[in-house]
Amino acid sequence: MQQSTHSPQSKSLSASAIDSAASLSNLQKTYAAIPRERPHTPLLDKVDAPIDLKTFSESQLITLADELRLFLLYSAGQSGGHFGANLGVIELTIALHYLLDAPQDQIVWDVGHQAYAHKVLTGRRDKLGTIRSKDGLTAFPERAESVYDTFGVGHSSTSISAALGMSLALRYQDIAQTVACIIGDGAMTGGMAFEAMNDAVQQDADLLVILNDNDMSISCSIGGFSRHLATLWESGYQVDISDAGEPILCKRPVMQAFDRRKRHKELRDVPQLEDNLFKAIGFTYFGPFDGHDIPELLRVLSLAKQLKGPVLVHIYTTKGKGFAPAELDPVGYHAISKLPAENEAVEDSPKESKPLLKYSQVFGQFLCDKAAIDHKLLAITPAMEEGSGMIEFARQFPKRFFDVAIAEQHAVTLAGGMATQGVKPIVAIYSTFLQRGYDQLIHDVALQNLDVMFAIDRAGLVGEDGATHAGVFDFAFLRCVPNMLIAAPKDENECYHLLNTCYEYQGCTAVRYPRGVGTGAVITQPAQVYPIGKAVVESVLGQDDAANKLALLAFGTMVEAAQQAAESLINDNIESDCQVHVVNMRWVKPLDTHLLETLIEQGITHIATLEEHMIMGGAGSAVNEYLLNESPTFKNSHPVICNIGISDRFIAHGSPAEQMADCGLDVVGVVSQLQQLLK
Amino acid sequence: MQQSTHSPQSKSLSASAIDSAASLSNLQKTYAAIPRERPHTPLLDKVDAPIDLKTFSESQLITLADELRLFLLYSAGQSGGHFGANLGVIELTIALHYLLDAPQDQIVWDVGHQAYAHKVLTGRRDKLGTIRSKDGLTAFPERAESVYDTFGVGHSSTSISAALGMSLALRYQDIAQTVACIIGDGAMTGGMAFEAMNDAVQQDADLLVILNDNDMSISCSIGGFSRHLATLWESGYQVDISDAGEPILCKRPVMQAFDRRKRHKELRDVPQLEDNLFKAIGFTYFGPFDGHDIPELLRVLSLAKQLKGPVLVHIYTTKGKGFAPAELDPVGYHAISKLPAENEAVEDSPKESKPLLKYSQVFGQFLCDKAAIDHKLLAITPAMEEGSGMIEFARQFPKRFFDVAIAEQHAVTLAGGMATQGVKPIVAIYSTFLQRGYDQLIHDVALQNLDVMFAIDRAGLVGEDGATHAGVFDFAFLRCVPNMLIAAPKDENECYHLLNTCYEYQGCTAVRYPRGVGTGAVITQPAQVYPIGKAVVESVLGQDDAANKLALLAFGTMVEAAQQAAESLINDNIESDCQVHVVNMRWVKPLDTHLLETLIEQGITHIATLEEHMIMGGAGSAVNEYLLNESPTFKNSHPVICNIGISDRFIAHGSPAEQMADCGLDVVGVVSQLQQLLK
Repeated sequence: MQQSTHSPQSKSLSASAIDSAASLSNLQKTYAAIPRERPHTPLLDKVDAPIDLKTFSESQLITLADELRLFLLYSAGQSGGHFGANLGVIELTIALHYLLDAPQDQIVWDVGHQAYAHKVLTGRRDKLGTIRSKDGLTAFPERAESVYDTFGVGHSSTSISAALGMSLALRYQDIAQTVACIIGDGAMTGGMAFEAMNDAVQQDADLLVILNDNDMSISCSIGGFSRHLATLWESGYQVDISDAGEPILCKRPVMQAFDRRKRHKELRDVPQLEDNLFKAIGFTYFGPFDGHDIPELLRVLSLAKQLKGPVLVHIYTTKGKGFAPAELDPVGYHAISKLPAENEAVEDSPKESKPLLKYSQVFGQFLCDKAAIDHKLLAITPAMEEGSGMIEFARQFPKRFFDVAIAEQHAVTLAGGMATQGVKPIVAIYSTFLQRGYDQLIHDVALQNLDVMFAIDRAGLVGEDGATHAGVFDFAFLRCVPNMLIAAPKDENECYHLLNTCYEYQGCTAVRYPRGVGTGAVITQPAQVYPIGKAVVESVLGQDDAANKLALLAFGTMVEAAQQAAESLINDNIESDCQVHVVNMRWVKPLDTHLLETLIEQGITHIATLEEHMIMGGAGSAVNEYLLNESPTFKNSHPVICNIGISDRFIAHGSPAEQMADCGLDVVGVVSQLQQLLK
Repeated sequence: MQQSTHSPQSKSLSASAIDSAASLSNLQKTYAAIPRERPHTPLLDKVDAPIDLKTFSESQLITLADELRLFLLYSAGQSGGHFGANLGVIELTIALHYLLDAPQDQIVWDVGHQAYAHKVLTGRRDKLGTIRSKDGLTAFPERAESVYDTFGVGHSSTSISAALGMSLALRYQDIAQTVACIIGDGAMTGGMAFEAMNDAVQQDADLLVILNDNDMSISCSIGGFSRHLATLWESGYQVDISDAGEPILCKRPVMQAFDRRKRHKELRDVPQLEDNLFKAIGFTYFGPFDGHDIPELLRVLSLAKQLKGPVLVHIYTTKGKGFAPAELDPVGYHAISKLPAENEAVEDSPKESKPLLKYSQVFGQFLCDKAAIDHKLLAITPAMEEGSGMIEFARQFPKRFFDVAIAEQHAVTLAGGMATQGVKPIVAIYSTFLQRGYDQLIHDVALQNLDVMFAIDRAGLVGEDGATHAGVFDFAFLRCVPNMLIAAPKDENECYHLLNTCYEYQGCTAVRYPRGVGTGAVITQPAQVYPIGKAVVESVLGQDDAANKLALLAFGTMVEAAQQAAESLINDNIESDCQVHVVNMRWVKPLDTHLLETLIEQGITHIATLEEHMIMGGAGSAVNEYLLNESPTFKNSHPVICNIGISDRFIAHGSPAEQMADCGLDVVGVVSQLQQLLK
């Protein structure tokens, strides 16, 4: 769901179409480079809304697909963003908008990182270059952006539920409109997709589910479900649709390009047609079909959309279709960064002798270092091997690495089960995805006080992916859970040692760190065990006899901003009669209440808490609770308190710096809030 | 998962075995009444640990099943508790403990309300009468209670994940032990069960999943999955297990008792063997078998447990097996209350002319009243039709009632989908189960600001079901989410009007109310629309010129305790120089900050917040945040604040009154904390 940031091939090849051996029944061209010039797209330029497609001939639709592909390649080079999945659904998107009457008919995308073609065809062609920029198009479908975006997405596996809700609400109101959702094979492993299929059959809802099977999640799809799809493919059979809409079992037409036996070696001897999961659960199933064959898609979908009850059409597509490097490396091309400017192309970042480490790399290093000396360590990821920095660990310790597919609930409880058997599981998970495993964290780990560590990545604001991927609720939803320890490192080095500290602790712990790179702090060896719940005074600036004594209680990523804000206040003489104590709180739970007492005893007059998290229920709120309820000194001295964090709203996409400024969490914003406090 | 509280048949029949036409291959007796005397159970009395079973003959095991059934009937009459599911798994439990070597071998129960027989056979026979009482046995398996309870449960659908974790951790350590889990057909609709099956196949884990299919969740199982199981049954085929452990397709032996066509009428003409979902996903499947036939269970399970890889054995059992009234009414007998004492039996509560309403009944009444005048209202439940008080609504408005099975994630997103199409969905959900739909609430409702109301039942402490069912985190995890409104009624009447108020609001709202009955407040008509975010001063006690002026800011259920505590303080003269303002806050979000300002302006010296929720991150924390950050008056007057709520620990089962006392939330506890505050 989160994009990786592999750089595209930066060799400046001109956009040249090469013959595609893959496409037997269609006319797609395959490209070898990303064009730097806006391509000539005469047909595409005529499409300002889906209705403009209706007069196109089939051959024009095929040409349109080629233009759209080239346009997406160009646009991705300009703005970066999700890549492979978008190239894979060009033909499907065209076919759907040709056949359905959006926005009256409802098209629901799962995850939504494959909706660029949809955005282009629904009036946003000329804005596509703004995607993921502040005030530009969002990375995912969003209802506020377009009437064609029927449902906001970002997380996986929601589309069948949402589409079913639409279908049932429409039926209840006697409105006859088609509801179709498009879900990838990777998203299908998320349990709620099964919950929704179960219910769709119960309701006998009119619902068209298009399973966009590319044998990929973000990395390769795994598990019994993926193997099942491969089996359906390699059986050599196809459930075709008759002109009357009836299933017809027949031999699948040959489509050379799609040989799934390479990955699923155990399928070599598929003897016969196997059990069909979708039919078993009660769907009418058709497929598999070639998802790049526009005439075939039109034939199948035009018949399928007229059927009653829940229908699933299984198509096979190639992630990165039509861009040769992406077809060869679909994982690396899940998303790309924008092309460097021509004159940057040869520059090799000469100023930085050593690139900054990403926090996910710090975690990866910790995993490898610790696993080498601790046999008990096992690590679990719900389909985020790359994003969570676990590739090297998985390579070195394949028996101790568990990628459970997109399945956050399962990931957490799996860890709980493991912990009962004398090993120490680490769940590597993004903050935003831990929301999916919340009940499991409470019941299957914390309530049983099992020895599980959560390595929570992408905490705080995450930049271009926007509100759906922000990790700004975790302090609130975690700290109310008994038995949980929560640590928030200020930099890479502290992250490394807090991971080690929490790993060594017997019980349930969470280390929460941000997306992207850190401050450049060098990781020291050996790994330390910090005292639990002890904060660190980073610095004291200003005179002891100042009238105002301000304590900046900073959590995690905000320590650096606090330090800079303090320096600004004192050194720039913004506050003349002030002393500032900058505290790296390090732990959200337990709080260092001893230090809080010491500070108050030292005559602190003002306290500001700083966190990259919602103010409501956050770490600052924990400080409030302690001071108001338990502090023996607070009642007598009454320092003035303010909680600095994210106010009560969702934060739209933008660069991380833009988002921080937007929230008043950059140094300027913090200084301004501190001045307000000191007034 | 939550028990219903239908009363058992209280006619005082003696425990008499009647012939069971149902059992063709076994010797079970069927009983017509619950014995009041401890039955004679000579074989059972010899079993203090599973190892004691090992020397029993098959016929002794069958006799043991009969004794165990009679013992469970007797015990349930004494203590109440889950009922039907426990009677259904007696033979299975005996077979498992005979074949496996617990506690080395791992037996994992799903949900856990069917583990009474397991508790009896694992050394807890003589304590079973204490079940669900304070300091007695828990209602569910709990690791702290017994080494035989391998994993704590309470919520549904976790067992395959937990068992898979155990299996993988054991394999990693080269420990050869059997891991078996038992999951009901109802629990299988929960998505995480599918996530776990997908992963079990990926891992090729040695795992024995026993699907205990009784065609029931708490009420009748629904959906495509349930229909699939019925299809497998009614196909007339069986996948038997050969002596070599191979699947053998054969005609299923006749077992008259199990006619699933009554419920699944669409299955009348099952023509042939259908697709098998478990085989499709990659499990080795055997079944269906008669789950009450001990010799057959021993034969099948002893072979299956030796197999490698993920294996699923599908057995069919009867919920309430062996107790005639429960077999006839499995929904009503999901759980029972304890038998009244003999001399109570005829008493018909003469003192109470009108029984108190449960909050779930208030919700049910609101639903029916509102639906009658508002065509847009639709209501969703994840398998809690009875528990959530929706039976009458479902009867009156079947097209507007959606039971989605145990599928909390789906339930929330389904509502989001519906809300896009001009209707107003209400998600009726227990607080503890909303933890399963948290990410969906954030992304699929709140972020899109969709017009969905959550009716959150069983909030706060829930009594005998214990920590797994407590709803004490919801304020914390909800109030940090932008766009959410959160209301907490003080009584039944206010609940009715707050439901109406939130329903009428355009956006996402939650009304949070407790388990059980209210204070007896009569519901007034017509339904009102309260002002959003306005609190109510319930009373002011004491003199205006008192030195201490205390504001009790009470949320929801704590308003009554606050009022009584105030009366105790003033009228009983515990605090002589004190005035108390009792405030019904009514809204957690938005807070009535205007009232807070007014109170401070009136010279309030002390503020106590009261809530049936964790202190950390709760409603009191919201008051703290406002006063410290935003209040213009607070900084000058400094009232002393304390937050009264549940401290940072899980609260064990007990009666609701015992739990409240344990937490210091009864009147005595509140008074004591207020005295502390006023010191």
